[in-house]
Amino acid sequence: MKVDGSHYRTIWYNEEDGVVQIIDQRALPFKLIVEDLPTVDDVALAISEMHVRGAGLIGATAGFGMFLAALENPETIEEQAVKLKATRPTAVNLAWAVDRQLKAINNAQTPLDKQKVAFQTAQDIANEDAAACKKIGEHGLQLIKDIATKKDGPVNILTHCNAGWLAFVDYGTATSPIYAAHEAGIPVHVWVEETRPRNQGASLTAWELQSHGIPHTIIVDNAGGHVMQKGMVDLVLVGSDRTTVTGDVANKIGTYKTALAAKDNNIPFYVALPSSTFDWNLEDGNQIPIEERNPDEVTAITGLHNNEQIKITLSHPNSPAKNYGFDVTPRRLVSGLITERGICNAEKESILNLFPQSLSSGLPPSTRNV
Amino acid sequence: MKVDGSHYRTIWYNEEDGVVQIIDQRALPFKLIVEDLPTVDDVALAISEMHVRGAGLIGATAGFGMFLAALENPETIEEQAVKLKATRPTAVNLAWAVDRQLKAINNAQTPLDKQKVAFQTAQDIANEDAAACKKIGEHGLQLIKDIATKKDGPVNILTHCNAGWLAFVDYGTATSPIYAAHEAGIPVHVWVEETRPRNQGASLTAWELQSHGIPHTIIVDNAGGHVMQKGMVDLVLVGSDRTTVTGDVANKIGTYKTALAAKDNNIPFYVALPSSTFDWNLEDGNQIPIEERNPDEVTAITGLHNNEQIKITLSHPNSPAKNYGFDVTPRRLVSGLITERGICNAEKESILNLFPQSLSSGLPPSTRNV
Repeated sequence: MKVDGSHYRTIWYNEEDGVVQIIDQRALPFKLIVEDLPTVDDVALAISEMHVRGAGLIGATAGFGMFLAALENPETIEEQAVKLKATRPTAVNLAWAVDRQLKAINNAQTPLDKQKVAFQTAQDIANEDAAACKKIGEHGLQLIKDIATKKDGPVNILTHCNAGWLAFVDYGTATSPIYAAHEAGIPVHVWVEETRPRNQGASLTAWELQSHGIPHTIIVDNAGGHVMQKGMVDLVLVGSDRTTVTGDVANKIGTYKTALAAKDNNIPFYVALPSSTFDWNLEDGNQIPIEERNPDEVTAITGLHNNEQIKITLSHPNSPAKNYGFDVTPRRLVSGLITERGICNAEKESILNLFPQSLSSGLPPSTRNV
Repeated sequence: MKVDGSHYRTIWYNEEDGVVQIIDQRALPFKLIVEDLPTVDDVALAISEMHVRGAGLIGATAGFGMFLAALENPETIEEQAVKLKATRPTAVNLAWAVDRQLKAINNAQTPLDKQKVAFQTAQDIANEDAAACKKIGEHGLQLIKDIATKKDGPVNILTHCNAGWLAFVDYGTATSPIYAAHEAGIPVHVWVEETRPRNQGASLTAWELQSHGIPHTIIVDNAGGHVMQKGMVDLVLVGSDRTTVTGDVANKIGTYKTALAAKDNNIPFYVALPSSTFDWNLEDGNQIPIEERNPDEVTAITGLHNNEQIKITLSHPNSPAKNYGFDVTPRRLVSGLITERGICNAEKESILNLFPQSLSSGLPPSTRNV
């Protein structure tokens, strides 16, 4: 994606300075801070303290972390792997990337070979993530093209949370068809639901879109239904944290209400996801455990005041709050799933047509794009 | 309602000090500030600067404003009426209360008579508002009782925005059945949707409930669907800013999404309203013009930091926002309307059964409970 006119990924190896670099997302949307990660300890901190977040990006960052571990001392690679895995224990992509590196490094013989293979594997993990997201964009582009041919003016797309470039290495999932349409010269406009409580829509998705130059408008989550009622939305695109083999979609809290509004207004509701978010063993979305997060995310919020990021309190201390991290959108509300292999219906047969080997493949189940 | 164990209205005449008093709602939920309104200019400021808000309370405050105008100088009563009406030109209750006072005052002969009738009319307007809300509570109580007999544990009620005591003189509308149930010893628990962008749920409704001692939990608007899916909601109660004679309900933005979630989960969705919010001439809710408010309410938010109320910015200045003030919930999603005369279906015949004279009565149409 473009930042200040230049192409950026969310993580990269700066060959000139010989250092891994990321965007410290904690400063967004207010400041663009590029951070060096010179050591594996810096990588561990960047993951645990959420300088980076999002399934794909966490995996890629861990991949580079293992490269730095091999560079520092190939003898202690196993310890470093354990340390990296502990930074966000529920992020399945993290463990998957670390294990993939561990296997590659252990298969190499000399310290130099170990470093070389670790570098190549880190690059591969990042490139594969970007390539999968790009493919999602190509498949999803067709949906936008079809709408564009039937109307005048921009195609209005509504999205929730950040299933964007910032959650992956490049392109994102829900945003990837939008970037592809923009690239193809199709005028688009994006309604960005702010996505309380952590406001990833307003702070991350909107930042991405303005940075890349895509017309967009922030609305409160409450307004998503209204803009649909008024005919101002042609397509809803969201991501997924975990998708059952039957097509139920667990995603950021509020996705369910948005899906209901899309259904009520006959607006196509598509979920964009890399196939790594499929849970091949789960038939019923109601069985997905819902993460409860710190209620402080509901009763307080962070933003900019006098050029400084501060946290303010929103409610009386006598009022308790609950903070459910995501919800499940039943397959009956999902028009289709956009994957790196193409678009399928949100039902088992259609999913397994695209991914016939997957019931036995042992691909990683899902992770949370917090 | 109770504040620190004592009964309060939102506006009252303090006989001891001979002064009109209100709660300055701008300081809620952080501080309880009782404010004196010694002059009609203080009343005008309190309305225009939103020390008080909500249809019923604005009307009652204007009523007391006209009393103070008569006290100050009965000769200038017409000018003061114009000034008061201009404080919030879209608030229909405001104009209605001022006109009622004007008629009463002009009908009296001596200056003393004018003051007396103005005082009595101000009290009448406030008392009638409280009485209508109390009636709504009595009628709505039956719904809660019916649920309570069929389940163990508290009746879980979800509400949106503040159709509460703080928007009226006492009891509120959506909250009135809740206070009545609490009074009747029926255990209730209220899910309070925070209601972005102005967060009247988290800052006003939750404050009321904690002050009165009613168990409640704040959630983000996005979580309302999830708690319904999980069987944690027995009843949804909301208010209305304007209701068509056919039963379509314009209310705070987000009410529509919440109604969809209630419908999808077979949860009764009731709207509590004084009959003054009926628009007897409007058949189709889609024709209600939707107020667009300052986008700054979306991109910034106010809260407490170091014991001081401050405003912080939430998004990048390059990202525009839109701020739709309310949305329309179609009658097909509404289980019933709770009015001061009883409960009716959200359809014309049923509404006109309860209010047979209303098509020609010239009652005020609606107002906005901002």
